[in-house]
Amino acid sequence: MATYNLALIGFGGVNRALAELVSRKNAALEKEVGLRLNIVAVSDLHYGSVVSPNGIDPRALTETRFSKGGFASLSGGRSDADNERVIKEAPADIVVEATFTDRVNGEPAITHCRWAIEAGRHVVTTNKGPVAFAARELKLLAAAHGVGLEYEGSVMSGTPVIRFAKRTLLGSGLNGFEGILNGTSNFILGKMEAGLTFDAALREAQELGLAEADPTADVEGHDVRLKVVILANELLGAEFSPRDVVCKGISHLTPAALSVAAGEGKRWKLIGSAKRDERGKIHASVEPRSIPLVHPLAGVNGATNAISFQTELLGSVTVTGPGAGRTETAYALISDIIAIHQANIGATKPCKEAA
Amino acid sequence: MATYNLALIGFGGVNRALAELVSRKNAALEKEVGLRLNIVAVSDLHYGSVVSPNGIDPRALTETRFSKGGFASLSGGRSDADNERVIKEAPADIVVEATFTDRVNGEPAITHCRWAIEAGRHVVTTNKGPVAFAARELKLLAAAHGVGLEYEGSVMSGTPVIRFAKRTLLGSGLNGFEGILNGTSNFILGKMEAGLTFDAALREAQELGLAEADPTADVEGHDVRLKVVILANELLGAEFSPRDVVCKGISHLTPAALSVAAGEGKRWKLIGSAKRDERGKIHASVEPRSIPLVHPLAGVNGATNAISFQTELLGSVTVTGPGAGRTETAYALISDIIAIHQANIGATKPCKEAA
Repeated sequence: MATYNLALIGFGGVNRALAELVSRKNAALEKEVGLRLNIVAVSDLHYGSVVSPNGIDPRALTETRFSKGGFASLSGGRSDADNERVIKEAPADIVVEATFTDRVNGEPAITHCRWAIEAGRHVVTTNKGPVAFAARELKLLAAAHGVGLEYEGSVMSGTPVIRFAKRTLLGSGLNGFEGILNGTSNFILGKMEAGLTFDAALREAQELGLAEADPTADVEGHDVRLKVVILANELLGAEFSPRDVVCKGISHLTPAALSVAAGEGKRWKLIGSAKRDERGKIHASVEPRSIPLVHPLAGVNGATNAISFQTELLGSVTVTGPGAGRTETAYALISDIIAIHQANIGATKPCKEAA
Repeated sequence: MATYNLALIGFGGVNRALAELVSRKNAALEKEVGLRLNIVAVSDLHYGSVVSPNGIDPRALTETRFSKGGFASLSGGRSDADNERVIKEAPADIVVEATFTDRVNGEPAITHCRWAIEAGRHVVTTNKGPVAFAARELKLLAAAHGVGLEYEGSVMSGTPVIRFAKRTLLGSGLNGFEGILNGTSNFILGKMEAGLTFDAALREAQELGLAEADPTADVEGHDVRLKVVILANELLGAEFSPRDVVCKGISHLTPAALSVAAGEGKRWKLIGSAKRDERGKIHASVEPRSIPLVHPLAGVNGATNAISFQTELLGSVTVTGPGAGRTETAYALISDIIAIHQANIGATKPCKEAA
């Protein structure tokens, strides 16, 4: 049985859900995977920070209604966030980065990851920023320090599309992908097919909590663009920055345009895609496309996400699943920790057996 | 660079496609995965057998039109099959079992696997028989002999659903699945939705080579039943034999019934499924079901296959891809060999480094 001490950076919905999973699922993880999780530190801009080397009862974290600076009420707690000290000094094996995604330069999350790796901590993150802007640098740094860096939740929350493509499709000749990677815009398109204007559909998404007050990132494709960059770099060996990818959203589409498409047996979908051409060059884009009903992404409805991978030996293989959700995204962190655990077992267990 | 010597048992479409992939893709596999494949033996009821310790040029195997007993024309070749000698004595690291699937008791493929494992060979197979009837016994035997046993291609050809569910969904609380696991019957249902009778749709499938002269296994659900047994045992820990699973096919359905369903926003699909109930008991069945259009399997058309996995933390996650095809199924064997290779690296490399 391996125990991993976790330092949680950010305590919004995702890391709170992770704490709930630690509370609810540790016994199942022990039985199924042979690992135990122990939260030893949390740092959050709003609640403050707490370090507790023997571990913090996850129920104390999730069942208490903390106010601003409220972590000061915990043993080892302070009212200020202090991410740097927590990352560098808390006795954690794994730093869990789940702060906000900055869409301009990925900071301060990139710095958080860098600090953690340089301090010899594995890093798991659901944050698109560090992965879209600095995956290459951070991977080299992690390799140099002999630690793991995993980010399954940066695309499609806990639906394990990165690991599916990288591991289980290995050797199949992956040369491109097309995805519906933003549930908010897909929900809005569905409502527009039912006759609502873009503005009315957006309001309904906002009322349901599916769209933020400023919906730009979702409806103009910026969120999808980060995911396309992550996948193109990770799966096709591209070296894109977000500014390299052409991006067009859905706000200019009209119910009339969607109705015309329906009459032609087609549906408009916001598609993020990349493909490698015969000369090895990789082309990526985010744009609404009118796709035929037989297309594997045409039946993806509501807030669901999906990616079709194009491969030489299997043709098209599609994974459909949740693209958001607190618990779903927290599961991505669990799956990342499992991946790190299994890499560790592979690296150490046989030698111990041989000794 | 690791080189694996292969003995191919059966030289029908799948192992012939594997030989083609060895010929075409060895360079890519070397570069991408760090392994090389070398065919050292083939045995087939029709063509005979050949053993060649230094390897057989895969193009000689795939580009020659052999007649019955034709392997006798090769160096080290004989006109009779001699599976037992080839499996036990050829200098292979991996035995590739791709003979016919016997739906009554899984033989002689089970015996082939047993011989191979007892001779210290890894086994990869696309054959449903050994997996549906004897996975438990063969896994114990493989563990005892320290060899790998992989069978991704026994369900949905090369679409890696077994590895997806077992590995990348680990820890998600998988508790059931529903699948469209037979492309022939799904193709026939599509034609019946377009107004054909069952008999006319079946004839069209036969003319296209999608259905065999005796279509019983496809249209009465027997093929799906083997796959449900494999998945339920592998993913849910059931201990089913094929006779334990209730099985109903599609031959009794009428275009009228499909038309009624369409009027209700539903489609008839042949669904193979299993789920674990609250008390831990596993229920499995194969039957046509009328599912609503929003169901993740409702949009699966033609000969395509799909499985929706039900999980506690992610809800439903669906993988859609090819369910048949020579190259697609041969890729399953490649993916199995990669899995064995990676397990071997994990087991040996760190110790060598430590030494």
